[in-house]
Amino acid sequence: MPRPLNLHPDRLFPAEPATRAIARELYREVADLPIISPHGHTDPEWFAVNAAFGNAAELLLVPDHYLFRMLYSRGVRLEDLGIGGYSADPRAAWRILAENFHLFRATPSRMWLDWVFAEAFGIDVRLDGETADFYFDTITEALQRAEFRPRALFERFGIELLATTESPLDTLEHHQEIRESGWTGRVITAYRPDPVVDPDFEGFTGNLARFSELTGEDCSSWTGYLAAHRKRRAFFATMGATSTDHGHPSAATANLSFTEAEALFDRVKNGDASAADAELFRAQMLTEMAGMSLDDGLVMQIHPGSFRNHNRQLFDMFGRDKGADIPTRTDYVTALRPLLDRYGNEANLSIILFTLDESSYARELAPLAGHYPCLKLGPAWWFHDSPEGMRRFRLMTTETAGFYNTVGFNDDTRAFLSIPARHDVARRIDCGFLAQLVAEHRMEDWEAAETARDLAYNLVKRAYRL
Amino acid sequence: MPRPLNLHPDRLFPAEPATRAIARELYREVADLPIISPHGHTDPEWFAVNAAFGNAAELLLVPDHYLFRMLYSRGVRLEDLGIGGYSADPRAAWRILAENFHLFRATPSRMWLDWVFAEAFGIDVRLDGETADFYFDTITEALQRAEFRPRALFERFGIELLATTESPLDTLEHHQEIRESGWTGRVITAYRPDPVVDPDFEGFTGNLARFSELTGEDCSSWTGYLAAHRKRRAFFATMGATSTDHGHPSAATANLSFTEAEALFDRVKNGDASAADAELFRAQMLTEMAGMSLDDGLVMQIHPGSFRNHNRQLFDMFGRDKGADIPTRTDYVTALRPLLDRYGNEANLSIILFTLDESSYARELAPLAGHYPCLKLGPAWWFHDSPEGMRRFRLMTTETAGFYNTVGFNDDTRAFLSIPARHDVARRIDCGFLAQLVAEHRMEDWEAAETARDLAYNLVKRAYRL
Amino acid sequence: MPRPLNLHPDRLFPAEPATRAIARELYREVADLPIISPHGHTDPEWFAVNAAFGNAAELLLVPDHYLFRMLYSRGVRLEDLGIGGYSADPRAAWRILAENFHLFRATPSRMWLDWVFAEAFGIDVRLDGETADFYFDTITEALQRAEFRPRALFERFGIELLATTESPLDTLEHHQEIRESGWTGRVITAYRPDPVVDPDFEGFTGNLARFSELTGEDCSSWTGYLAAHRKRRAFFATMGATSTDHGHPSAATANLSFTEAEALFDRVKNGDASAADAELFRAQMLTEMAGMSLDDGLVMQIHPGSFRNHNRQLFDMFGRDKGADIPTRTDYVTALRPLLDRYGNEANLSIILFTLDESSYARELAPLAGHYPCLKLGPAWWFHDSPEGMRRFRLMTTETAGFYNTVGFNDDTRAFLSIPARHDVARRIDCGFLAQLVAEHRMEDWEAAETARDLAYNLVKRAYRL
Repeated sequence: MPRPLNLHPDRLFPAEPATRAIARELYREVADLPIISPHGHTDPEWFAVNAAFGNAAELLLVPDHYLFRMLYSRGVRLEDLGIGGYSADPRAAWRILAENFHLFRATPSRMWLDWVFAEAFGIDVRLDGETADFYFDTITEALQRAEFRPRALFERFGIELLATTESPLDTLEHHQEIRESGWTGRVITAYRPDPVVDPDFEGFTGNLARFSELTGEDCSSWTGYLAAHRKRRAFFATMGATSTDHGHPSAATANLSFTEAEALFDRVKNGDASAADAELFRAQMLTEMAGMSLDDGLVMQIHPGSFRNHNRQLFDMFGRDKGADIPTRTDYVTALRPLLDRYGNEANLSIILFTLDESSYARELAPLAGHYPCLKLGPAWWFHDSPEGMRRFRLMTTETAGFYNTVGFNDDTRAFLSIPARHDVARRIDCGFLAQLVAEHRMEDWEAAETARDLAYNLVKRAYRL
Repeated sequence: MPRPLNLHPDRLFPAEPATRAIARELYREVADLPIISPHGHTDPEWFAVNAAFGNAAELLLVPDHYLFRMLYSRGVRLEDLGIGGYSADPRAAWRILAENFHLFRATPSRMWLDWVFAEAFGIDVRLDGETADFYFDTITEALQRAEFRPRALFERFGIELLATTESPLDTLEHHQEIRESGWTGRVITAYRPDPVVDPDFEGFTGNLARFSELTGEDCSSWTGYLAAHRKRRAFFATMGATSTDHGHPSAATANLSFTEAEALFDRVKNGDASAADAELFRAQMLTEMAGMSLDDGLVMQIHPGSFRNHNRQLFDMFGRDKGADIPTRTDYVTALRPLLDRYGNEANLSIILFTLDESSYARELAPLAGHYPCLKLGPAWWFHDSPEGMRRFRLMTTETAGFYNTVGFNDDTRAFLSIPARHDVARRIDCGFLAQLVAEHRMEDWEAAETARDLAYNLVKRAYRL
Repeated sequence: MPRPLNLHPDRLFPAEPATRAIARELYREVADLPIISPHGHTDPEWFAVNAAFGNAAELLLVPDHYLFRMLYSRGVRLEDLGIGGYSADPRAAWRILAENFHLFRATPSRMWLDWVFAEAFGIDVRLDGETADFYFDTITEALQRAEFRPRALFERFGIELLATTESPLDTLEHHQEIRESGWTGRVITAYRPDPVVDPDFEGFTGNLARFSELTGEDCSSWTGYLAAHRKRRAFFATMGATSTDHGHPSAATANLSFTEAEALFDRVKNGDASAADAELFRAQMLTEMAGMSLDDGLVMQIHPGSFRNHNRQLFDMFGRDKGADIPTRTDYVTALRPLLDRYGNEANLSIILFTLDESSYARELAPLAGHYPCLKLGPAWWFHDSPEGMRRFRLMTTETAGFYNTVGFNDDTRAFLSIPARHDVARRIDCGFLAQLVAEHRMEDWEAAETARDLAYNLVKRAYRL
């Protein structure tokens, strides 16, 4: 007999009954608010072409490194899941997930998937070896129906706005198509210049050449290179972009003179930069980007501190983004100072900081955001985008930075179907956190309700200028 | 209609009813114990002269960097608040605070201020834009009454002892006046030698000259300089001092030979020390101070790990202590070893360690204090002087260092009116923490009651030798 | 009147009644499961010889650095406790513990000892100055009875398997005796090669000579030295060993070529290695040991990050392991990479990582173990082997690494009588943690029950290949 799958209406709320009752009340205020997804990695082609997704494994397993990293850690071969271009029978791959689903107990992936199964597909039994085929068939069949096409899901999920993330080398043609299609769903882009900013990025010099081509600027000179950024940012803005995003190994920034920066650019542009020059160039570019943001109003996001592709052998066999990125200790206090020396007191500049190093929440990030006008704190990110991670974020930042130096929730995902589940988790956790404050008489109920709405909806609109 | 302001009698206690009942019981044991404030930054002139405070903004907003740092982070100009010598209409400044008071939700500042409003001034509506003028008038008028003079408040607040903090260059004339005034309030000083110990301190060489003058010792020689400290410490002791305090960028200590130290002093005394020499000199001076403490019995406090005046532009415009000090990662294990090599096993020496880096609580500080006879742990400090900060302090230090290697509470404040509120928060959080232990059958109720009294009153008296 | 001592059946369970009820239910599943102790420091001679323990102080106080470190931190002299070869009246030493027993409130030592007093010795009054003699007599007398001999206690405690830890230089004669004695208790060894792997270990060159002697290999050559390890590991396996253990100052690993490693060995083998060479040699040896583990199947444990013998004066007077080891900040991401480059993707290799730096749980260790097939996480260790330490371990690792990349509990103790108490604490905390997940509807009750049994019994057997 398969085990029943039910999403309990009180899930994630504190267990203490009076506190739970407050959480329920607060959640009622925000449960049905539209979803704003200001930062993520869905594919704009989905919404441009609006084709049906293929099958359960292709949709839910293959693109989700949270899932296959855990399976890999317990000895499953990625080839058997069809990862990294290897072909595998999708039904067999799905069965591997099903038989190992207990590995995900108490992880956010389990919670997000259960939501997708129950709410998106209406399945009412739990995933395990016994129900693997039933799941595969149910999901795969559903995907052929019109109501499971990308645009239909977008609407059904109550998404008010969704931002994707593109390289400056992207032509944004899918964004163009969406705009011209007449469809009213609001899908915008964001400017992620790592491929032309990070001298260690694969194909950096080729990328610069292509950057020249796309912008008509001469990216072999520092002046031309900066002009190319300005032009491309403006083009991204015409495709709705209100933000940029920067994924650097550290949060280092620099504040070089024009002459120093120019000389540095000359050293790195040919692709043979030393490690120190590469780091310094990335650092200087964060400050340059902040300056451009002050001019064109794009909100700046910094996502530092991930050691990318830590597993060399896996990278060689399967490529990037295969679950082998590992967080590192990240300094902000010294690292950000050069940028802050130049732009820290600009109230019109908006820089949203993320971290994978929770020890910086109370020690560095909340004190910085609770002082500098240009700084705000992004939500708990990646490995910390989880119930306990979100609780720690609030517990360790609120007393110093308050709620109003934070920016609501980012789902940051390429797992499109999980978007509502992720926002729902964030809303439940925030309501539970606020309920605790009310129950301990540290906040009034009306304040908590107002704050809950701000955290779920208003702050993100303001912070991302939407 | 203004919102009512009520301080709930159960505030900050755990929400679970049985645990809350235990917390209430424990709190009853400590709620009315006298306040010992062994470390803080109030102005002794207040108690010497006993003049009326000016108005709401001057008393509560202008000196409180917790408040104006948050306002600044959201775009308020410090000039408009009258900070840093800029003049501003106090009523208008107060209105800015009032209209932005939601920024402080769930922060300790909000909790402390609500206590001041309700308990000190008897106000029963909440602060917001609508009540801003009512607040300003009520508070400003009250301050003119005799019962709001500093000495009257000191008595009304049940303060048994209050320590201020002075530089060796201070003549302590206000302390002298207090002693000669016949007033029975016990206000003592503490020895904070940073201006003559830190080669990076503003005016260091001039400070040394003045130090020579005040002590009659020749501070251009290492021997004379050390003698000057000994004399000045003795003078501070006549004004009640039982402790010294050291605010260094790191916890580095050194254990140089006399000859090495003398040569180092010769390098730094002229104010042109290298960064390494400055750090080494501060490090050596901690060890020298420990040696003097062993002789004269003054308890030593080390407050390391703050990056002072991080915001260069703000420092240039508004000066020190404007909310731009940011905590940094702080090492203790290697840093303290030279001092501990020399004095670590002295049971008569008492060194109280503070941190702004919570990751050191369980990893470094509790293990060190749970072993070395001379070490004790100061309470959660500054950004961590908050309900959650205090909880984390107990959760992460108690299992290794116990309660009895800690020293009770420090309010560490210049916000005089908030002192009872701060001690009350600490007592409530400790009672809640103990109640949890009792509820989980990890401690007996009679033990918890004894410990609660120790944490609120006895430990601080013993640790600071009061 | 002495205070009563009762172990409450609900101790350590969450206070909230519904959650507590779930915890009780889960605990019922695991309370009586046999104890597997896969890593610890008990003395095999106890089980070989089966002699009576001496007296209360000798058994419970003198070997327990958790106890005397705390007493020392509050000014007690180690000489007065009979530590480090100093002789002291055991009754008087015991009285010192008794009179200072309040220092241990809310520490795990207090909890473990209360269990020993109540459950092992049937004492029903609390330890304090008044009951010191009663305790000393009761315990000392009991120890003379047959049921308190080591083997009888082993059986009474329900220990299914106990691993000790020995140096390669140990002849394992006690293990041999146990095997030949006909006693059915399963006591096995583990291979801890630090004395012949760490160039900074006391007597390193002498140790190498002895290593040659014991193995018949020429340990003055790199090849002979490696062969000696292989032989000795095989010998340890005949005495039941299924694991190795490595206690290094850091988690550094290296991946040198054979020639480089050989040259390095030549530099360190004479005992005059530089600090950098010593660190590099330890680093390389972790990788070598991983390679041997892949061949012979021994599970590898890495216990890094303790600054050993931090108190120089104490080390000179009393020797090693006197409570003066202090945790340090520990990096894993960069440190482990060379080993992982070579063996990280081997699903047949099993490396169990420990830490004293909790900031690495969510940031580094859970992401690493949640990806690499060879890595698993050891339980909360040493200072963190405590109720709050265990909770933090689960809270910070589960969402990324899951439960199934962890390995159950290690008691890691030389305090034999506390073994059941320690396992009981771990089981209660895990049940409480799972109960919370069930109460918040993040897990089903049947899953929690299955997981509780896995954490208490099944995972440790699988992880240690028992």
